[in-house]
Amino acid sequence: MANRIPESFQDLLTGKITFAHLATIMRDGSPQVTPVWFSYDGQHVVVNSAKGRLKDRNMRARAQVALSILDPDNAYRYLQIIGRVVEITEAGADLHIDALTKKYIGQDSYPWRSPTEVRVIYKILPEKVQTMG
Amino acid sequence: MANRIPESFQDLLTGKITFAHLATIMRDGSPQVTPVWFSYDGQHVVVNSAKGRLKDRNMRARAQVALSILDPDNAYRYLQIIGRVVEITEAGADLHIDALTKKYIGQDSYPWRSPTEVRVIYKILPEKVQTMG
Repeated sequence: MANRIPESFQDLLTGKITFAHLATIMRDGSPQVTPVWFSYDGQHVVVNSAKGRLKDRNMRARAQVALSILDPDNAYRYLQIIGRVVEITEAGADLHIDALTKKYIGQDSYPWRSPTEVRVIYKILPEKVQTMG
Repeated sequence: MANRIPESFQDLLTGKITFAHLATIMRDGSPQVTPVWFSYDGQHVVVNSAKGRLKDRNMRARAQVALSILDPDNAYRYLQIIGRVVEITEAGADLHIDALTKKYIGQDSYPWRSPTEVRVIYKILPEKVQTMG
């Protein structure tokens, strides 16, 4: 498996609007997986959560994650990424969730913000990339 | 979290045609996740792979898995399942992959069969179920 996203699959990261199914590891070693919004900075898949949530706790404790990203126009074309969270930061996380909101639902500001939550960015470096289709 | 699929979300398992993103655990404890076809027998989410593949090896060695299933008509409605592989069998696995082929692509027989592969069924018992939307 390559460790970079092939040019021919970068449309799934930057062009089309699709979810990533992000798997993280629980304290007991079992997996959990949920659909998430994401962006791509050319090197990292960037996701956004809030401090204290399950995914936040998992990614802070165990950096190994995996992503499955389907082409919304062809379910038999997808990217499978195994990677590592290499940076966790609150810097820019509010702007980032607003940018994701724009990308995914066309609104300027994240509508489900809770007044007490602290948004967090996680930068995932792909280590193994497999493509299908 | 409940340990059963709520009635109101069973359409994602039995009615609509959608993929499950199945996360399994690698030998080193890291996750991997890919889209898979599935059926539901009223109690287990049933997936199908072939002997010797990565998912097969992972599920035989580590029964804890997780699934993320999006509503194809509403990406903000989904099921998150954390579960355990409680049965692995070759019995009926060829018929099962043909049934999945019918469900997903409308053909009578699985078109990507390799002459040497041994199909395998994995029955996943949901232990924690979370719904969204």
